[in-house]
Amino acid sequence: MQATNDLMKKIVSLSKRLGFVYQSGEIHGGLQAAWDYGPLGVELKKNITELWWHEMVRSRGDVVGVDTAIITHTDVWRSSGHLKNFHDPLVDCKKCHSRFRADHVEGSVCPNCGGELTEPRNFGLMFKTFMGPLEDEGSIVYLRPETCQPIFAQFQNIVTSTRRSLPFGIAQTGKAFRNEITVRNFIFRSREFEQMEMEYFVHPDQMDKWYKYWVQKRLDWYTDVLGIKKENLRLRPHEEKELAHYAAGCTDIEYRFPFAGGDGYGELEGIASRTDYDLTAQMEGSGKDLKILDKETGKKITPYVIETSGGVGRTFLMVLLDAYREEEIEGKTRVVLGLSKKLAPVKAAILPLSKKLSEQAREVEDLLRPHWPVLFDVTGSIGKRYRRNDEIGTPYCITFDFDSLEDRKVTIRDRDSLEQIRIEIDRLVEVMSRLMTSDMALGDWERQE
Amino acid sequence: MQATNDLMKKIVSLSKRLGFVYQSGEIHGGLQAAWDYGPLGVELKKNITELWWHEMVRSRGDVVGVDTAIITHTDVWRSSGHLKNFHDPLVDCKKCHSRFRADHVEGSVCPNCGGELTEPRNFGLMFKTFMGPLEDEGSIVYLRPETCQPIFAQFQNIVTSTRRSLPFGIAQTGKAFRNEITVRNFIFRSREFEQMEMEYFVHPDQMDKWYKYWVQKRLDWYTDVLGIKKENLRLRPHEEKELAHYAAGCTDIEYRFPFAGGDGYGELEGIASRTDYDLTAQMEGSGKDLKILDKETGKKITPYVIETSGGVGRTFLMVLLDAYREEEIEGKTRVVLGLSKKLAPVKAAILPLSKKLSEQAREVEDLLRPHWPVLFDVTGSIGKRYRRNDEIGTPYCITFDFDSLEDRKVTIRDRDSLEQIRIEIDRLVEVMSRLMTSDMALGDWERQE
Repeated sequence: MQATNDLMKKIVSLSKRLGFVYQSGEIHGGLQAAWDYGPLGVELKKNITELWWHEMVRSRGDVVGVDTAIITHTDVWRSSGHLKNFHDPLVDCKKCHSRFRADHVEGSVCPNCGGELTEPRNFGLMFKTFMGPLEDEGSIVYLRPETCQPIFAQFQNIVTSTRRSLPFGIAQTGKAFRNEITVRNFIFRSREFEQMEMEYFVHPDQMDKWYKYWVQKRLDWYTDVLGIKKENLRLRPHEEKELAHYAAGCTDIEYRFPFAGGDGYGELEGIASRTDYDLTAQMEGSGKDLKILDKETGKKITPYVIETSGGVGRTFLMVLLDAYREEEIEGKTRVVLGLSKKLAPVKAAILPLSKKLSEQAREVEDLLRPHWPVLFDVTGSIGKRYRRNDEIGTPYCITFDFDSLEDRKVTIRDRDSLEQIRIEIDRLVEVMSRLMTSDMALGDWERQE
Repeated sequence: MQATNDLMKKIVSLSKRLGFVYQSGEIHGGLQAAWDYGPLGVELKKNITELWWHEMVRSRGDVVGVDTAIITHTDVWRSSGHLKNFHDPLVDCKKCHSRFRADHVEGSVCPNCGGELTEPRNFGLMFKTFMGPLEDEGSIVYLRPETCQPIFAQFQNIVTSTRRSLPFGIAQTGKAFRNEITVRNFIFRSREFEQMEMEYFVHPDQMDKWYKYWVQKRLDWYTDVLGIKKENLRLRPHEEKELAHYAAGCTDIEYRFPFAGGDGYGELEGIASRTDYDLTAQMEGSGKDLKILDKETGKKITPYVIETSGGVGRTFLMVLLDAYREEEIEGKTRVVLGLSKKLAPVKAAILPLSKKLSEQAREVEDLLRPHWPVLFDVTGSIGKRYRRNDEIGTPYCITFDFDSLEDRKVTIRDRDSLEQIRIEIDRLVEVMSRLMTSDMALGDWERQE
């Protein structure tokens, strides 16, 4: 456990130093468990959500997207049961007035001062605020605690305007908020977080088939698209007693995080077979008919739904943990973020060998920048600049040296294999295009040419 | 004014019917002035913010991005002055207890019942909520009312981790929240909205140069990238009396919206020369040194800042209004959304001439979908499907007919010129790639080939 806790410390430190993640409000003392994504972090996060959106929406004919408001009509949460049931049981210390989650207190005395505790009371997990000029009961609204419920509330509008028939899905990414008492493990669990969710509506007869399909499909995304190591991922089907009364099944995709208790695995995403529970709840709460026509039988039915629900922050943290490695090279340690090319926030660094070459090397930057996020770095020795780019996961370093002035060639260096090839500047866009879509090491790629 | 109000009604109606924008919580009676973006809306909105991000961050070497938390440390707003000064003066009716903005009431009697009004009191415009297990003064936090202030609060971290020197910029897009009393004009003014903001830090001597640069640069974006008609846009420099005491200048980019009062123009974006006001305020509030080294003089200085601040919802609404047109064709009216190709949510529709050809036409969909968002539509007459795609702004309709089975060619139809060309299926990806980056009409393009 020592080694793994060390890894978390390194990732937290690297995140701040290099600009992946900062504590929010840090100059004012910091807001607990609130995080801001820095210049590299925002690009990595965008890459994750854009890859998800491409996989789940744009590359498919059967899924559409939505983007619903964060402050949501209270009746959406009344219908879904959140208003009544989405809470934690809390106890107060009668002596020092600290507050704790009842299920986190052992021996029924205050962990703080040993004082006597009250009976548990329910504490709502939704953030509430007041909309409009009055602060009273009637103006209370809630920040959405999940992105999926508003999908059910807009089901009718979406079906009408897209003229869909079963099976089809509706996807959403965006912020959600839960006023958790216990927040921990860096960006793994915070009160403000980002979700990637999809509701796939099917004929009840097809429920099992699609549940299996989505469990496998989602698992494959982590390995095949994000490049996460297979051995660090696992599927955990929920046991009967864990399932909500309406659920037909639920499987978590888990990653071997270095901090999680028990067997060391933590949840990344859940795939749940939720029957018609959510649509029925919104129908009952609104009095509106959300049934749709089943073309085969000509009858109106309430579709069943398979939900895939993942967290952006958790995926982001996993990506950093999974990519981090330290290597010995010529007696020195180098840190490498072995990010897949699709995820890397910077695709290539342009490095003039000497400051004197800065102006000429800008030509290379100008060539590449319209196509990929690149970085121009002229400060420090070339070795130092290589290390800096290894550490932020840049797949390729492109060095412009004095020979480049004569032969109009530059050297491309591969982050992982450390191989180098020399290539004409005029061919650079073409070569980079092919490298970015190839899994091959630079040397193998060149030999194949 | 009649005609222009009609246009707004048409856009609101089209938005719901086709899936651009729905009222939030509609099945539960609707939440006032809260909006959800539907399947077409989410794609159009993403196209707008992605084009902005590319223009302002990825295509430049001197601007980086961030993504900060929505719930922000209260001292950020205390330092900036929002906590004290960001409010509206409100009056209450002593008789019916309605509340109004003092500057919206004429004659000092209740517009509702004619009753007597109280003296104006200040009402904070920030949404407040409680973080953690207690609901007391100490746990109050606010939803950010703008995306720019957290940029100043993270200035030091960003400079350190990106090793920047002047001039450079920091950009952010995301949600912001203002508890406005008066909300109106569809998505033009709502309490939850999305911003695209950038703070560009410069040496004080360079302030004027960069202010002029950014005013022009931002105006060009609307015409050259989004394709908005020049005659509907204007620059409005603020008069002396409009400027905040610290501001050296401010210019609004305005669009001729059909609803705005006065001269008919409404604000899209503001470009402001804000001196060192914001960084100084965060320094004084935190006690931290946010000065940076000026390489030329070797002295530490507080940079001046030029801010560009635009609204996503307003841009979205403008794009729809600007693109909408009705045309007479062969005695019939067709509605066209003349969206630029970059903005169109669907780039091509694949239309099998007959249902019998569905299976074979899927090959065309499979070819195009990895590259562009496309739509497969087999329902209704071909003319009806053309109209449907004209109305959602699809630049190209691709028809697969019975001849396609023999000659392996399809017909591409241009949304605007209505010209058609016939092209080999095997060349379709190449042709579409070139069409998507060309401004030419289909016929001109073919003649040039």
